[in-house]
Amino acid sequence: MTIEEQAGLVKLASPKLAGTTGELRDQALLAVAKALMDNKDAIFDANRQDMEQAEKDGIAAPVLKRLKFDEGKLRDVINGIHDLVQMPDPLFQTKLARELDEGLTLYRETCPIGVIGVIFEARPDALVQISALCIKSGNCVILKGGSEATKSNKILFDTIYAAVREAGLPENCMLQLEARSEINELLTCQSSVDLLIPRGSNAFVQYIMSHTNIPVMGHADGICHIYVDKDADIGKAIPIILDAKTQYVSACNTVETLLVHKDIAKELVPKLAQALKEKHVELRGTKEIQALVDCVPATEKDDDTEYLDYILSAKIVESVDEAIDHINRHGSHHTDSIVTENKETALHFMRMVDSAGVYQNCSTRFADGYRYGFGAEVGISTSKLHARGPVGLEGLLSYKYKLFGDGHIVDDYAQGRKKFHFVDLP
Amino acid sequence: MTIEEQAGLVKLASPKLAGTTGELRDQALLAVAKALMDNKDAIFDANRQDMEQAEKDGIAAPVLKRLKFDEGKLRDVINGIHDLVQMPDPLFQTKLARELDEGLTLYRETCPIGVIGVIFEARPDALVQISALCIKSGNCVILKGGSEATKSNKILFDTIYAAVREAGLPENCMLQLEARSEINELLTCQSSVDLLIPRGSNAFVQYIMSHTNIPVMGHADGICHIYVDKDADIGKAIPIILDAKTQYVSACNTVETLLVHKDIAKELVPKLAQALKEKHVELRGTKEIQALVDCVPATEKDDDTEYLDYILSAKIVESVDEAIDHINRHGSHHTDSIVTENKETALHFMRMVDSAGVYQNCSTRFADGYRYGFGAEVGISTSKLHARGPVGLEGLLSYKYKLFGDGHIVDDYAQGRKKFHFVDLP
Repeated sequence: MTIEEQAGLVKLASPKLAGTTGELRDQALLAVAKALMDNKDAIFDANRQDMEQAEKDGIAAPVLKRLKFDEGKLRDVINGIHDLVQMPDPLFQTKLARELDEGLTLYRETCPIGVIGVIFEARPDALVQISALCIKSGNCVILKGGSEATKSNKILFDTIYAAVREAGLPENCMLQLEARSEINELLTCQSSVDLLIPRGSNAFVQYIMSHTNIPVMGHADGICHIYVDKDADIGKAIPIILDAKTQYVSACNTVETLLVHKDIAKELVPKLAQALKEKHVELRGTKEIQALVDCVPATEKDDDTEYLDYILSAKIVESVDEAIDHINRHGSHHTDSIVTENKETALHFMRMVDSAGVYQNCSTRFADGYRYGFGAEVGISTSKLHARGPVGLEGLLSYKYKLFGDGHIVDDYAQGRKKFHFVDLP
Repeated sequence: MTIEEQAGLVKLASPKLAGTTGELRDQALLAVAKALMDNKDAIFDANRQDMEQAEKDGIAAPVLKRLKFDEGKLRDVINGIHDLVQMPDPLFQTKLARELDEGLTLYRETCPIGVIGVIFEARPDALVQISALCIKSGNCVILKGGSEATKSNKILFDTIYAAVREAGLPENCMLQLEARSEINELLTCQSSVDLLIPRGSNAFVQYIMSHTNIPVMGHADGICHIYVDKDADIGKAIPIILDAKTQYVSACNTVETLLVHKDIAKELVPKLAQALKEKHVELRGTKEIQALVDCVPATEKDDDTEYLDYILSAKIVESVDEAIDHINRHGSHHTDSIVTENKETALHFMRMVDSAGVYQNCSTRFADGYRYGFGAEVGISTSKLHARGPVGLEGLLSYKYKLFGDGHIVDDYAQGRKKFHFVDLP
């Protein structure tokens, strides 16, 4: 069967999965947790084979770290599944109930999106998390994980799919693609796939977006800013900047550009430069920054660069409004933070900066589904449509309008024989 | 200035408009209503010139009817503006408030999408409605109306823009394009336009979707179904079918295909055929329908056709599940109705049919923002992402996450020195 034919079968399974009860989907999740425990030796064994191959191939250390699936990661994903089971069923929730007229009642009820294609990096734990989020939200899923994890992904998928089938979820409610070449086939399946979620590098997400007619939810860039206001507490500013830059340097929510109010620059910048030096961070500054400390000269290009590295560019601004303007022009609408003790300035900044996350006095690294208390996330969206910021269960839902009548026709209202009365029900 | 440069100015106005209070935006709406009344003679005069030109050009009668902007339509749009003013401010609404840890509090707050481009048919009243929805929701708007209404659109836009500027909304918060050629320029403005809403024919919407990288919200097709169940009340079924087919034949929410349960076909179909004949509707039937009444033979192509005309195709099904399967395969996920007195069958149908609207015992023509009590709509979405069904104010919103801390850094949580406690606030 071609990928298109297989995706077609998943599409046909999707209303069946959407029609299951929350109880059944929770039972399926518990069955998955049990099956993973029961199968753990074989899973670890497959992962060891992937790790050995990756080491032979000279794969970089951070990638190896993500590829590894051990007791600790198994415990984390199983805890995650139990957290999801504890959450209320996100489906069939009534979000609007309105009597339009006597005997004519409208409901808006949550429902799954349908079939979601997720293309993700070589992280076996991500496969489990994504599958669990999709099962909980009643979405069929087509998975394609990074090829370094081929053996791990195969046994994890087989274990999960067998468990959900055994628990009573419909045939073909999940599909795994194994070859990288199948991604391009998946991109053409617009009649079967409702949403694609690519994870990985900016270039990869852009490639997916420009090669498919399927809606794509994927963040493109994370050019995050910290603005240190004239009313900042420097004792908070420096640890926040260090955390946002160095706590995990290759994440999308790290800070790339620092904006400093002119009135606090003389005090802040020399202390900060020293602290950054100790953490091996290269400071790139404009002329005004260079006048205060010894640093690498910044160019205009730095304003628009996501380093994902131990590099921070810095710039002095005249006012909070100049900082806001800079962020709205050069940022990627991901997460931006202001350090200030002035509540009014903070609220102004947070209202005017057009980003998914706007923070006061904390690190941009908090932009994460787990840290927001969403249990897990399928990704972080910098789009303003559908879902924005960390995307958990809620971002995987759509809704439908249900209208119950008793022979009602529109012509009665068009001709004025009847009138709508619009009463919202409790 | 090029369209791209002008759109860039609108983009810069967008955080300013997003930062205005609901009070100010309501005052601007009231100023618009007053200015339209004060200017009505000049507006009617411009519209008369458009009408005369359109008549000379031999424009069809239904188009002329939409083009006309008279006392009645002015009253309707002004009533619509007053309805919007009565509605609560949709912005800055807190949708989630959660203490992540002591002193670290997360809020999800509604905000506008930003800059919305709307391309719409030659209906001057639509220009006013769309502008009013965008002002209320804090969105900047770029308008391009049908060219037959050029003079009407110009004076309406100038009147509205002058009124909102006078009321204190930011410069460049609205822009009107005048030449059709400017649409193609608009399609390339992905750095300034957050969302495009094209209204018009299916072919036009498809053209827009395939010629831009800007997200598009537009319905593509309306292939709506009515399924008459074996437990239907025929006295309700026939008026519902007639209303759904003939009340306004060129709307996207008219019924195109009728599915009839085999056990009720013999009683329903002959009576229905007679009623359709009286309304000059051509019935196209499968062999099983042809065995019951004299009708035009239906082909497979009819299953996938949006007639927007006095034509109805009909088919006999063995069961509600066959009807559901047919609708999910051939429908356009717009609006589908079941006629049945059996509540259980209705709920099963409404859960399993994957459409924006699923109805029991009423006409598909109810799928409309006004009839849902949304005040007005910018369109009807058959997408399952972002907004589905009639799109009113809510569909024009996004949200942002605001996080307030006091020097909080992620490393404390990563190293286990602190723990999240996740308490939802009332």
